[in-house]
Amino acid sequence: MVEDGEYNMTQELIPGNSITRTVKICGIDENKVVEMIEDMLSAQQNPSISVCTEAGEVHLHVSAGAEDEKEAKKIIKPIVKELKSRFGEHIYSTEDDVTLEKAVVDILLANNLTVSFAESCTGGMLSARLINVSGVSECYKSGFITYSNKAKRKILGVKKSILDKYGAVSRETAKAMAEGTMDVSKADVTVAITGVAGPDGGTEEKPVGLVYIACSVKGKTEVCEYRFAGERNRVREQSVSAALCLMRKCILKYYNEVTFGKK
Amino acid sequence: MVEDGEYNMTQELIPGNSITRTVKICGIDENKVVEMIEDMLSAQQNPSISVCTEAGEVHLHVSAGAEDEKEAKKIIKPIVKELKSRFGEHIYSTEDDVTLEKAVVDILLANNLTVSFAESCTGGMLSARLINVSGVSECYKSGFITYSNKAKRKILGVKKSILDKYGAVSRETAKAMAEGTMDVSKADVTVAITGVAGPDGGTEEKPVGLVYIACSVKGKTEVCEYRFAGERNRVREQSVSAALCLMRKCILKYYNEVTFGKK
Repeated sequence: MVEDGEYNMTQELIPGNSITRTVKICGIDENKVVEMIEDMLSAQQNPSISVCTEAGEVHLHVSAGAEDEKEAKKIIKPIVKELKSRFGEHIYSTEDDVTLEKAVVDILLANNLTVSFAESCTGGMLSARLINVSGVSECYKSGFITYSNKAKRKILGVKKSILDKYGAVSRETAKAMAEGTMDVSKADVTVAITGVAGPDGGTEEKPVGLVYIACSVKGKTEVCEYRFAGERNRVREQSVSAALCLMRKCILKYYNEVTFGKK
Repeated sequence: MVEDGEYNMTQELIPGNSITRTVKICGIDENKVVEMIEDMLSAQQNPSISVCTEAGEVHLHVSAGAEDEKEAKKIIKPIVKELKSRFGEHIYSTEDDVTLEKAVVDILLANNLTVSFAESCTGGMLSARLINVSGVSECYKSGFITYSNKAKRKILGVKKSILDKYGAVSRETAKAMAEGTMDVSKADVTVAITGVAGPDGGTEEKPVGLVYIACSVKGKTEVCEYRFAGERNRVREQSVSAALCLMRKCILKYYNEVTFGKK
């Protein structure tokens, strides 16, 4: 277990001019990331690699020191290349100013896709985060916040039988929400989130932190189950990041033969 | 103009045990608040009053020092009473743990009201903020994020003629969005936000920061125009606070003969 969201095997000082490049990863948890680069973390002194987590994402900071900037960049390059080979499409960017939501909007725009969301436990946070990206009006169609079962049925057309049989927080309801959103909004891509954010509402079978996210790309739907730790807002933030990751993955899978890392 | 969001006329040290009580005000801007208590700010040493702003709200911290807690409370009491008389219903709470959104949810629940939102430039932030309050599922019906004109028309039934004549960012569109949300969701209270959050999209006539918010309580609709300063996210945060304030005011006005301060 990594503590304090930071993991750095090399505590040595890096000489002269120091440069850092960040490899931004989504869709793999931190422990798995560390496991996949354990050899690199142990072997390296310059460049050093530090591992940071931000709600649902892992950032690898590769830092090198050298006499000048050019030399430092030369030291970093093969390490970043190796990381790219290990994590493949799980890397959404190596640019400082590209956030996960910006990367997702770029993919939507590049493929000329529109998007709509249905949110239950996140209550609008996914839309709010995507709408932070300028240029999003080209691809964002609409968002539906369907907190109650009644809203899920009336607005998204989720069948009462699904809600009764599987419950609001279930794989089946998430799928029906995503597909219902596609019917209603006619967007190319839809994402639906339903979960138990807490502090109340958890049961033994469906504990606080259990979240289902469905993503539909032109009718092809994938649903994932997540079990997030932390209090209400933390669960919601992680859900939003996970939704962005899943959306990115589903679109890339639909449009390209992509590799999501060699493991 | 108050700088750094903090205003404190008394820089004297307060003796012994110090106690602070916070009077939380919404719906009046900071300069107006300061103007309304200028006499109190100049006269006071113990208790002292400091003025803090938080996106769209003003908090007055009344602090008193005394030999013991009981004595300090006795010093604070008449000042808080005087503030209550000056600001009336603009004070939404004097409790530390009551946020503006919590105060609004309490009013909704106390009046047995349901609520739905339509958001354009805030893209889900209003819903996300309200849904932070536990117990909100008792009153929150649904949210619609209608970023495009098409979504405003198709989901909320805003007439094309209104959008064409007045534009998406207008008093008329805000009203039509709030009333459309009422038709669609059958909620008792609806709020709609439409504005120019920036950085793009501003014109001379409709600059960045111009926001219209409409609140409808059982069909009685009020629309307010705001001109917020700051960058995109700041405009959106202020819009959300203003929407909560307006909603609170409209419900209180509808249900009670309330006074919103003596000025």
